[in-house]
Amino acid sequence: MLRFLPSLPRCLAMFGSVLVAMSLTSCASFDSQPPRPRWAIAIHGGAGVPADLANPEDYSSAIERALQLGQSILADGGTSLDAVTAALVLLEDDPHFNAGLGAVLTSEGACELDASIMDGETLNCGAVASVTTVKNPILLARAVMTASKHVFLAGGGAEQFAREQGFSPVENDYFKTEHRRKSLERVKEEEQRAKSAQSAVDLCEPVYLGTVGAVALDQDGHLAAATSTGGLTNKRYGRVGDSPIIGAGTFAADTSCAVSCTGQGELYIRHGISHALSALVEHAGLSLEAAGARLIHQVLPEDSGGLIAIDRHGNITMPFNTVGMHRGCADANGRFEVLIYKEPIINATVSP
Amino acid sequence: MLRFLPSLPRCLAMFGSVLVAMSLTSCASFDSQPPRPRWAIAIHGGAGVPADLANPEDYSSAIERALQLGQSILADGGTSLDAVTAALVLLEDDPHFNAGLGAVLTSEGACELDASIMDGETLNCGAVASVTTVKNPILLARAVMTASKHVFLAGGGAEQFAREQGFSPVENDYFKTEHRRKSLERVKEEEQRAKSAQSAVDLCEPVYLGTVGAVALDQDGHLAAATSTGGLTNKRYGRVGDSPIIGAGTFAADTSCAVSCTGQGELYIRHGISHALSALVEHAGLSLEAAGARLIHQVLPEDSGGLIAIDRHGNITMPFNTVGMHRGCADANGRFEVLIYKEPIINATVSP
Repeated sequence: MLRFLPSLPRCLAMFGSVLVAMSLTSCASFDSQPPRPRWAIAIHGGAGVPADLANPEDYSSAIERALQLGQSILADGGTSLDAVTAALVLLEDDPHFNAGLGAVLTSEGACELDASIMDGETLNCGAVASVTTVKNPILLARAVMTASKHVFLAGGGAEQFAREQGFSPVENDYFKTEHRRKSLERVKEEEQRAKSAQSAVDLCEPVYLGTVGAVALDQDGHLAAATSTGGLTNKRYGRVGDSPIIGAGTFAADTSCAVSCTGQGELYIRHGISHALSALVEHAGLSLEAAGARLIHQVLPEDSGGLIAIDRHGNITMPFNTVGMHRGCADANGRFEVLIYKEPIINATVSP
Repeated sequence: MLRFLPSLPRCLAMFGSVLVAMSLTSCASFDSQPPRPRWAIAIHGGAGVPADLANPEDYSSAIERALQLGQSILADGGTSLDAVTAALVLLEDDPHFNAGLGAVLTSEGACELDASIMDGETLNCGAVASVTTVKNPILLARAVMTASKHVFLAGGGAEQFAREQGFSPVENDYFKTEHRRKSLERVKEEEQRAKSAQSAVDLCEPVYLGTVGAVALDQDGHLAAATSTGGLTNKRYGRVGDSPIIGAGTFAADTSCAVSCTGQGELYIRHGISHALSALVEHAGLSLEAAGARLIHQVLPEDSGGLIAIDRHGNITMPFNTVGMHRGCADANGRFEVLIYKEPIINATVSP
């Protein structure tokens, strides 16, 4: 058997080769891309931004504050779940976005809110649909994830669970803004004009898709994703969109990536966009950017929406096929960007 | 240039080689597996069958009749959508299964029904949740798919849509059977005994998972999938399981496969099981059988459920990790099987 053992000089030569190979490998990866950031976060405030958006700085300022809040949590060693939750609470409380305060109105003039959150480490998740009295639906989704055996609670049952979990109810009027009341009036007027030419169930059109979402990678390497929305202006029939559907509007798995979507929810459900992105990264060998581009620019039709995603290496992608998408991202390497259209509003890359 | 043209004898030799190669190829595929069936169908009546099931022939007889109905539609050139719809209507109308008539009761003693259907050709789909007065929820899910712009309608809004689509309401009592009333009483008694040792929201246990589902491939090569359920005995808080979630309980795409799941819905949502199966087949290069086995026996824990699936080649798989699963399948090659546990109840392979 001894003759199969390598000689000492041969051992040393082999060891040397391994060292050279390791050195070449790390040089190559160091040269081709920056080192993996210790943390990263991306946030969206909805695709479907009109080209003539009034006061764009109001939206960008909110995205910037949400990013700063998320990055401070991550830089301090907080969890990705805490970062995405805090960012979404801030955006739910901002009347500019279609989530929480300032949500769009249903056909009956009410606000019905959907939200979901997912923990990439455990695949645990929580979602709520058609909530009407909970100030921050993302906090209720998180309570479903952590304090119930279930994943998805809807309607009055979700409200009952909220009461038992100590959520103080707010009046549905809390969510309503003058801006959204006028949007509903406008859509209903258009509906009346178009009614004779359309089928009875063909009356619900998105006017502004201001869903909010966040994805993050924390210093322990765990991913999380969260999404919150008021759905469509003039929605009816208890319509549920993609935002509370795990695998459609929201998905996170430490083995692949974290995703939050915004757009025409029905298309995102049919194609299971957030799970499809994860599968393309995990099974088809695509980079996060290539997988996102394929789904947004090849699978989905033009003007249908966008997504934000972070993979386990801290890569970020934020593709969209609409005129614009409120969005921003930051990471531990000093990247800090806030954008609406193609060009950045704020673009800083400083030493971390 | 002429010197690059092959001579006549060389041409004949090449032609002969191609013929031999074609012959070997078809022999090889003929030897290794039967030719692709022109149509195929699989049906389940729920995983989680108790080992001491009373009157197993009642369940098997219903699965057999649903299979015969589906196969007659497919053999006559009907669509996979029609086959899965007809099979599920039959099972919803049979009191043995937890869907339609005979659905389990919620904590409040009501029946709340969920269903979904998906067309693999167009990726169009329809789903309903928490329906209480529609006799056949799978027909309402199909109406959502074909007659609305939406994919997913829940609660009272879904009922309103049903009325506008001409569905006659039934009393909620129509769905309730003595067997399910006793099940709820038993679970509530167990709950009372266990209450002091459990958290306030940890009171909902599946007793019997009798969800029904069907998948089919038609002669035009189109796949379809459908699932219908009453959910969990003693469910509360407006809990939504995997059955109405496209990508969790139901998925179909002509490019990969059609899937219907049954089991602990929360796990099927977290892992996006039906979309994950499709992704493993489409992107990871796994056979349908290997992909199903990985998800049911490696990804999901023991005793959590099963699935049925058909790929675009007519291959069928029906894995489960529970004691048994009511199931059956048939195809144009004469395969006809009805099973509960590991061994078949009916197993016929005759010339088609």
